[in-house]
Amino acid sequence: MNVRYIINMLGKLLFIEALLMLAPFIVAIIYGENTIIAFGISMAILLMVGGVSLLFPPKNNTIRAREGLLITGLAWILMSLFGALPLWLSHEIPHYLDALFEVVSGFTTTGASVVLDVEAMSYSCLFWRSFTHFIGGMGVLVFALAILPATGTQSMHLMRAEVPGPSVGKLVAKIRLTARLLYVIYVVMTMILFLLLMIGGMPVYDSLVTSFATAGTGGFSVKAASIAAYANPYAEVVITIFMLLYSVNFNLYYLILIGKAGSIFKNEELRWFLAIVASAITAVTINIYPLYQNFWHALRDSSFQVATILSTTGFATANYDLWPNFARTLLVILMFLGACSGSTGGGIKIARVAVIFKTAVNQVRKQLFPRTVVPVKFEGKLLGDQMQSGITSYMFAYIAVVIFSILLLSFDAFSLTTNFTAVAACINNIGPGLDVVGPTGNYAAFSPLSKIVLIFDMLAGRLELFPILVLFAPVAWKKN
Amino acid sequence: MNVRYIINMLGKLLFIEALLMLAPFIVAIIYGENTIIAFGISMAILLMVGGVSLLFPPKNNTIRAREGLLITGLAWILMSLFGALPLWLSHEIPHYLDALFEVVSGFTTTGASVVLDVEAMSYSCLFWRSFTHFIGGMGVLVFALAILPATGTQSMHLMRAEVPGPSVGKLVAKIRLTARLLYVIYVVMTMILFLLLMIGGMPVYDSLVTSFATAGTGGFSVKAASIAAYANPYAEVVITIFMLLYSVNFNLYYLILIGKAGSIFKNEELRWFLAIVASAITAVTINIYPLYQNFWHALRDSSFQVATILSTTGFATANYDLWPNFARTLLVILMFLGACSGSTGGGIKIARVAVIFKTAVNQVRKQLFPRTVVPVKFEGKLLGDQMQSGITSYMFAYIAVVIFSILLLSFDAFSLTTNFTAVAACINNIGPGLDVVGPTGNYAAFSPLSKIVLIFDMLAGRLELFPILVLFAPVAWKKN
Repeated sequence: MNVRYIINMLGKLLFIEALLMLAPFIVAIIYGENTIIAFGISMAILLMVGGVSLLFPPKNNTIRAREGLLITGLAWILMSLFGALPLWLSHEIPHYLDALFEVVSGFTTTGASVVLDVEAMSYSCLFWRSFTHFIGGMGVLVFALAILPATGTQSMHLMRAEVPGPSVGKLVAKIRLTARLLYVIYVVMTMILFLLLMIGGMPVYDSLVTSFATAGTGGFSVKAASIAAYANPYAEVVITIFMLLYSVNFNLYYLILIGKAGSIFKNEELRWFLAIVASAITAVTINIYPLYQNFWHALRDSSFQVATILSTTGFATANYDLWPNFARTLLVILMFLGACSGSTGGGIKIARVAVIFKTAVNQVRKQLFPRTVVPVKFEGKLLGDQMQSGITSYMFAYIAVVIFSILLLSFDAFSLTTNFTAVAACINNIGPGLDVVGPTGNYAAFSPLSKIVLIFDMLAGRLELFPILVLFAPVAWKKN
Repeated sequence: MNVRYIINMLGKLLFIEALLMLAPFIVAIIYGENTIIAFGISMAILLMVGGVSLLFPPKNNTIRAREGLLITGLAWILMSLFGALPLWLSHEIPHYLDALFEVVSGFTTTGASVVLDVEAMSYSCLFWRSFTHFIGGMGVLVFALAILPATGTQSMHLMRAEVPGPSVGKLVAKIRLTARLLYVIYVVMTMILFLLLMIGGMPVYDSLVTSFATAGTGGFSVKAASIAAYANPYAEVVITIFMLLYSVNFNLYYLILIGKAGSIFKNEELRWFLAIVASAITAVTINIYPLYQNFWHALRDSSFQVATILSTTGFATANYDLWPNFARTLLVILMFLGACSGSTGGGIKIARVAVIFKTAVNQVRKQLFPRTVVPVKFEGKLLGDQMQSGITSYMFAYIAVVIFSILLLSFDAFSLTTNFTAVAACINNIGPGLDVVGPTGNYAAFSPLSKIVLIFDMLAGRLELFPILVLFAPVAWKKN
């Protein structure tokens, strides 16, 4: 194991985090807030701890899958541990565990909050909270790969561990260029969203943090009532569209950029995604129409809530916990599906769901005619054994994590619905669930044990389990 | 497709059902009940419809997997449709759909009930209800194979489709002898249980029907308060032990019979089962102890409830819906695990759960060292691709059925907990769930649509999905 490489890379990432913290630092200066001290101290600590890594220059740059997983898992944990400092040092979130929960929720683009009075917080802390969504959305390692000197093809191991989905495609031959292209597309889309929101009358600061939260499919809002607070149907429609756009594989935007826009609908995952979005919006609209008595309002709220959950953003414009049973149940199911591979969204991912569904249907045929081999195809290609067994193991590990989490949460006195949807909302990086953690609720009331479990779930969900799970495997730490 | 063979086999099964109905008919005579007419008419109908099949003698006895699945699926549906007749004709269950629900719940050994006042029903109808548990427990096709003239090795297709578990082992070379051995073990165990309950002071009739319900891991009781009504700790302990005994693969009893008792603990599934039972009982006992303040009472209630849910029986001696959150959540999770393969219990089966767990743990290692192949072993053997992909597809189909069922149930106005546990309790053939369908609750309040969904779930769960799912696949009905 290349320990020096791991330490060196982690050190660099802490430097990058110090750099990123300059943004809220500047916000604190602009608004003349005394959080400037908290951000200053945090940056100093980051630079000092990161500096330690300079004492261990790597002897070689050879890394394998193991180092890739360990760096990714440890990087996200360290970034969160240090990222929580300003919120805690500024006393805006009095308990460190709560600050950590909030920042993990930020980086993992979950958007679950333990802050009871969000509107009382400073501009700079709220900015940092939303900015973590933006950083976590495309991934901090992808960012590092984009800005650090190229380190050869082995960096694929880093990218693979951080970008969501069952298989990661490079856009171009050079990984560094791929990382840069992804970030350029990401930043440009977010700037367009920012401008569209401002044009629609949302204040500049709100437009900016809302754009960050939408881009990362995070869901933190600076208003207690989330997007509903703006009472701005135009902004709701814009955000709905962008939540869906950020749920799509960014490789498809690259195809558009190089003039192959026509070929994006050949993407099977996208077709599944659009079909699911369209049917869910239709079903929910019909189900909630009697409550609204206004078709366009029902359609707008239905589209927003379907998009916010399927994209795993977690904004709210309606308290869907008060909707009829069918709509609520459908939304809970959508919580698990999630977005497309290679997007900023979470969840199981549409590609996995599609493969699972096709495998199950295929099994019916296999049972009837055991001797006839009818292989499952996805994206026009035969489903390889490795892909299939990867998805299977992923699902099994996922189910195990969900079950153990619900069991540990049950030591708190909340309802099964609360515990189940809290775990679902955290592991799928959505944010709000139902009941106590519903769109108008909060995670503050959970015990420290439950908060630790949910922090674990958010990280495990964002990094697709294994970079976090391996940290608990003794074999991962063996010398060779 | 051998249509004549299918029709002929189904006809024979209806004759067998008429024969089995003689038992409640005799009970009706003994107690002088006027349900004698309802049973008489039902038997006559069975004989007539079954007689039609005599017009289509099979031209050959060659069947393949397809015919095996279709016969099994159709047999269980037909047996249920006709088995519901006496309950409906006697007006003891006024609506036919409710009578069908009750009988499907009986045959599938679920034990979910729509009867509001069970103690008002006649001895003969209650006997039939419990007797269906006994018939369904070991399987009606296995019974047919045991008593009908041998039809060659192709009958393995029938047995495979009805006996639970990922792989079915023949006890002896001849399938007919295997079927007979299974039934002999089953009947003898049930007679011992019957005697033990009578010795403990339970009335003869109650001992008999309770033995049937325990043997099939069904759960119907002739008392509204289930087993708690007898206030007989001895009987509770006896039933606890037997529920666990019936949850074990019957092949192991055969090993004991032939003097190889020492080798049964080499069975990996049994070791997992015992470990799960022991840890669940310990955890629940500790969790409920503060409520009881009496260790032995807490242990007895905990053991009974863990055994009743893990064996998928569904009796109750305590209203566990009032237990602390942790115990309730643990019991809901146990609902899905179920019993061992080749037992009379339902659920996902311990063998599948063990393989799933091992596969997930193995994946952590695989992620770390992608080039090192460390295969998963179960029961001392390498897990073959076919077994693994069989379990995977089973799980995927299972999850799909659970999700669609919950969605369809959500049109009723019950809580998510009610709907979720109702589906879990039906597809895993347990009976009671939580909330509206809790141990003191009932399925009567569901809409006809929900009842049909739950009937489907009970059948799909008992037959392990595919014999029921294939009935909906157009390809199953194609000529060739």
